[in-house]
Amino acid sequence: LPGIDELVGYRRSGELEKLQGALAGRAEKYADPRREYWNVPLMKSERTTGGYDDAEMERPAEQTTLTRRYTEAAISFIRQSENQPFFVYVPYTMPHTPLFRSPEFESRSLGGRYGDVIEEIDWSVGQIRSALRDAGIADNTLILFTSDNGPWLTMLTEGGRAGLLRHGKGTTFEGGMRVPAVFEWPGKVMPRTVSEIGSTLDIYPTFSRLAGADPSAGIDGVDLTSALLNGAESARNEIAFYRSDTLYAYRKGPWKIHFVTEGAYGQPPERTEHEPGALYHLLDDPSERFDIAEAHPDVVSDLIEAVELHRNGTPIAPPEFDRRLSP
Amino acid sequence: LPGIDELVGYRRSGELEKLQGALAGRAEKYADPRREYWNVPLMKSERTTGGYDDAEMERPAEQTTLTRRYTEAAISFIRQSENQPFFVYVPYTMPHTPLFRSPEFESRSLGGRYGDVIEEIDWSVGQIRSALRDAGIADNTLILFTSDNGPWLTMLTEGGRAGLLRHGKGTTFEGGMRVPAVFEWPGKVMPRTVSEIGSTLDIYPTFSRLAGADPSAGIDGVDLTSALLNGAESARNEIAFYRSDTLYAYRKGPWKIHFVTEGAYGQPPERTEHEPGALYHLLDDPSERFDIAEAHPDVVSDLIEAVELHRNGTPIAPPEFDRRLSP
Repeated sequence: LPGIDELVGYRRSGELEKLQGALAGRAEKYADPRREYWNVPLMKSERTTGGYDDAEMERPAEQTTLTRRYTEAAISFIRQSENQPFFVYVPYTMPHTPLFRSPEFESRSLGGRYGDVIEEIDWSVGQIRSALRDAGIADNTLILFTSDNGPWLTMLTEGGRAGLLRHGKGTTFEGGMRVPAVFEWPGKVMPRTVSEIGSTLDIYPTFSRLAGADPSAGIDGVDLTSALLNGAESARNEIAFYRSDTLYAYRKGPWKIHFVTEGAYGQPPERTEHEPGALYHLLDDPSERFDIAEAHPDVVSDLIEAVELHRNGTPIAPPEFDRRLSP
Repeated sequence: LPGIDELVGYRRSGELEKLQGALAGRAEKYADPRREYWNVPLMKSERTTGGYDDAEMERPAEQTTLTRRYTEAAISFIRQSENQPFFVYVPYTMPHTPLFRSPEFESRSLGGRYGDVIEEIDWSVGQIRSALRDAGIADNTLILFTSDNGPWLTMLTEGGRAGLLRHGKGTTFEGGMRVPAVFEWPGKVMPRTVSEIGSTLDIYPTFSRLAGADPSAGIDGVDLTSALLNGAESARNEIAFYRSDTLYAYRKGPWKIHFVTEGAYGQPPERTEHEPGALYHLLDDPSERFDIAEAHPDVVSDLIEAVELHRNGTPIAPPEFDRRLSP
């Protein structure tokens, strides 16, 4: 189903009804999700001297307890660290659909099943922070809480919402790619709200620097430490928005230019190429409502120049994930 | 220009371009607002024994200083109260367009002129709160901060934004009529966030009760004091959404039924009557994206019954404002 900004166009064309019909079967499955609907394994992988030892723990996974079990595993790992430096990555399966939460969180929120799931994740983050305090290492630990993408709008109320940002997952509008990021490091990270640009691409170089290592050559991303620790401006002022290997949009400072706009998962808007580009000012207009390219030809030129520099410095390479599958 | 949720429908029909043309002249005036563009007086009205003494202070009003001068007048009034009970109503002209702010607030925010205006209002509220503390009466004063309606979308970036709420001012969607409300009364109002229903109709009965008076008979609205002071559920569980004297929508608990949907100020969607009604669950779906009337016939019946009760108890009367003009 279309996002908030596209709904009316759909309704007029009659496509909404068609799509609703196609989704009805699936929607039912998600409206009352049950363990047996998804025959997915829960795997445990441990590093051994020879590589990795993967074991299937259960199948189908009991998804209602996934969030809690991930949290417990993270806390157990932290306790075992015994003052050695460590890195814990806790990529909760939730709130990806199908949505499951522990019995304790059923109907606990006002926001339906999605709200319940978020409250359990919130509780989990609190548990992990408590574990750090109990271990006496909270002041020596940097926590980053963030997300990979915006809401999956075809999942209706199960897929989340982007607030005032336009569209959702799969698109290069802000609703697809801009996500919250919270850093906590008592006494080190300055408490403040920042409206500058950072990317998950920057986590590796930033954490490497903080850990006393030099970021490896050839890794994309910039070191954000001076913004985090000293309140400096972000070292990143530009970001490229790709779909697969095609550059759809480019941001520099508050300005974002779209060369191609396109919905995702069968949603409008249809793919449209913009020549030279559709221009938005993301501070004045975070919802990407008003294309002001005509009034700002200099900004358009500047952004196109920045894109050329980006292209010249960025070889298009096949995804690492695909490479792993074909050794 | 259409709101975020209606933009695509407009674009398809070619109406967007027409509207943009019509607005161009006006937009320019608002993009660079000057005192002389609006020949409006600033009036001062003082109560006398015989009625009111109205005086024109300046014309055209120097609008850049309005927010600051309203704040100063409020603080001056508070200081003169000398421990007598008082009521101060500070209806800032801003952020209504045309947007003006003091020189000190020019480009101070990241959010353009609208952001600057909001920051000056925020500063003003802080000044008033400081004055209450300085006078030693902060603990004995209830502050309510709220707004009259949602964003005026035809004013583009000058008109504000409704975040995840649908549409804006002039409509009976949530973006038109749901606004923030913050109550502060140290030691009395419980610090918490409430997702229940209250209305500006309830301010008079609530404040009357708190001031030790009984709300006058025949005044619409309910007394919200037990929700404010004791953390009880709101005494209001229903609210009617009117345009002029026509009931467009009705809310009961989390459910809202639309009998008529219609854009405002020439924006889509076109007026559409819904039989028996379009139904939304505002907690699961605050953006009013998913009409789920078909799946919930019992809820629809219950809401229609509530509407009948409301109609039977609510005579349609001409607005007080019109009555004042024709004595």
